[in-house]
Amino acid sequence: MTKITGVKARLFNVPLAEVLSDAKHGDHTHFELITATVTLEDGSEGTGYSYTGGRGGQAITAMITHDLAPFLLGRDAEDVEALYEAMQWHVHYVARGGIASFAISAVDIALWDLRGRRSGQPLWKMAGGAASRCRAYAGGIDLNFPLPKLLDSIRGYLARGFNGVKIKIGQPELAEDVARIKAVRELIGPDVAFMVDANYAMSVEQAIEAARAFEPFDLTWFEEPTIPDDYKGYGRIAEETGMPLAMGENLHTIHEFEYAFEDARLAFIQPDASNCGGITGWLQVAELSRKHGLPVCSHGMQELHVSLVAAQPNPGWIEVHSFPIDEYTRRPLVVEDHLAVAPDTPGTGVEFDWDKLNAAHEDMNR
Amino acid sequence: MTKITGVKARLFNVPLAEVLSDAKHGDHTHFELITATVTLEDGSEGTGYSYTGGRGGQAITAMITHDLAPFLLGRDAEDVEALYEAMQWHVHYVARGGIASFAISAVDIALWDLRGRRSGQPLWKMAGGAASRCRAYAGGIDLNFPLPKLLDSIRGYLARGFNGVKIKIGQPELAEDVARIKAVRELIGPDVAFMVDANYAMSVEQAIEAARAFEPFDLTWFEEPTIPDDYKGYGRIAEETGMPLAMGENLHTIHEFEYAFEDARLAFIQPDASNCGGITGWLQVAELSRKHGLPVCSHGMQELHVSLVAAQPNPGWIEVHSFPIDEYTRRPLVVEDHLAVAPDTPGTGVEFDWDKLNAAHEDMNR
Ligand SMILES: [Mg+2]
Ligand SMILES: [Mg+2]
Repeated sequence: MTKITGVKARLFNVPLAEVLSDAKHGDHTHFELITATVTLEDGSEGTGYSYTGGRGGQAITAMITHDLAPFLLGRDAEDVEALYEAMQWHVHYVARGGIASFAISAVDIALWDLRGRRSGQPLWKMAGGAASRCRAYAGGIDLNFPLPKLLDSIRGYLARGFNGVKIKIGQPELAEDVARIKAVRELIGPDVAFMVDANYAMSVEQAIEAARAFEPFDLTWFEEPTIPDDYKGYGRIAEETGMPLAMGENLHTIHEFEYAFEDARLAFIQPDASNCGGITGWLQVAELSRKHGLPVCSHGMQELHVSLVAAQPNPGWIEVHSFPIDEYTRRPLVVEDHLAVAPDTPGTGVEFDWDKLNAAHEDMNR
Repeated sequence: MTKITGVKARLFNVPLAEVLSDAKHGDHTHFELITATVTLEDGSEGTGYSYTGGRGGQAITAMITHDLAPFLLGRDAEDVEALYEAMQWHVHYVARGGIASFAISAVDIALWDLRGRRSGQPLWKMAGGAASRCRAYAGGIDLNFPLPKLLDSIRGYLARGFNGVKIKIGQPELAEDVARIKAVRELIGPDVAFMVDANYAMSVEQAIEAARAFEPFDLTWFEEPTIPDDYKGYGRIAEETGMPLAMGENLHTIHEFEYAFEDARLAFIQPDASNCGGITGWLQVAELSRKHGLPVCSHGMQELHVSLVAAQPNPGWIEVHSFPIDEYTRRPLVVEDHLAVAPDTPGTGVEFDWDKLNAAHEDMNR
């Protein structure tokens, strides 16, 4: 009854309300949402997804359609972890990160959605069950915002109930970053958590200088100061400055996370289930985070990560990302008393509003 | 005059003459060839390519078509290295290895083909110019061959003029691998170079045991004993056994190579221009190989790598791979006096026989 009879991938280009910028990827006008719907022989369906900053969506869709779907048809959907391993090996030669991690993630999340729907369990219970609420911060993609606009957007986050905010840094001059950080800290006061994110635009030396300049502003973390591949460089920054560092959104295999845990001296880890192997991959990272004594956070797709982070005994913060995937679902992220609340519905609790997605996509491609 | 006006990707499924097997990917019935043809405003054309073991080709083609082509149109083709960097950053979020490395490789090789055609230089001169000939060994995908057939295929390699041979290992019992290795060494005598390749089917402990058992047979190298991500595991195998190790076909970013050079104690490095960033990426690895004092070898696409390896001051061996891409070109690999001979024609010297490719593809998909 749990034999897979269909795997269907769909790609949507979803426009952003305004152009958003960061230090390494430049301007974002839209994001890509890639959905994977897995159907079983009894007609039950689960849907998973991944997303990108606007590139690679066609390749991800092609891999699901041409490599993963034919491989999965006829297999039993029950043993999600075994299917996860099998998918990894099936595409291994062209994989170990990159597009394959995004494609496998979408399919893996669909299999978990099915698992939850069939067993009547919400994701936060399946993923550990420690709690159904977790801390959440609003993450801006706001490098291009002039200071008054930046401060307005921070006011907006606070008005929406967040007690944590993150801004992009990586302005041409470090003094400008410092001035923006100072202004935001003055606006939010000492009790709101404050993070900054350089999207690896700095060298190790620049990051050390920046971390020292940021020291007075009580940052919760400094995210991706330098390229994520340079684990030992992260270690040097942490060691020389004492600044808490965070990364993970650009680590796509469990091996990359292992090296990061060993060498990068991180204070927080930020796996993204959309690109590190779905829920199975994310939970593997969460397990490793406990071994290394770090709180586990997330990047993007807040409507899903709320269940994963809340469920862990060592929860960090979920990022409420500026790609508003949750606005295209039946239940946009719920925030109560500064905490994000996981859905209690069986499955992932992420149900897409296909009409709204189709309309956005058509709007974008007009 | 060097503005890019077209980037066209094509995908071919090319059947193998017989089913070939290795320890980790199972049976191969065909390979995928992905070509990228770049056209300039003056009508000049260059063609590059990548290949896979039969999976991921659609995703690679999609990335070239939907992400790289629109990005390249209108840009100047002259500064290949700058375009290489720009392509890497353009798809960085969905990349750092995997499909993106394959897609960028195909386009980069096309740009080098153009560079050579326009300047009248053959690849071996552009790539360093040390020599136009290099050592070459025949690499079997023969794990499934019964011993008599294995020995027949080795005889075939020797008859074709090779003085180096490689077989797959990873049989269910180590004793069987040892028996096959012993039989091959007895057949080829002491003067023919002999390598084995486990396609990372072993744990570090198993590989140490195997390396010790292989000690009497004077192997030139033991290739991919364990998963390529475990750089330190490679280091342990080398340290505990003294066996010369080789890998590289599964490293897709310069950072992965850096870690391998630092931690894996390799005796040979084997980058593959089809999946490590094309000629630009391959030459970056060759540069690193000199810093670390290793000979630089290659994996696959012998018709191209002959020019790259021969051109280096620290040449190792090219693998003459069992995916016979060169049979679909106007100049299949030339071997003289046991040495592979690089083409002297301007560009890469790899010109596809499109009719033959189309016929093979149609045959495969019939
Ligand atoms: Mg970030
Ligand atoms: Mg090999």
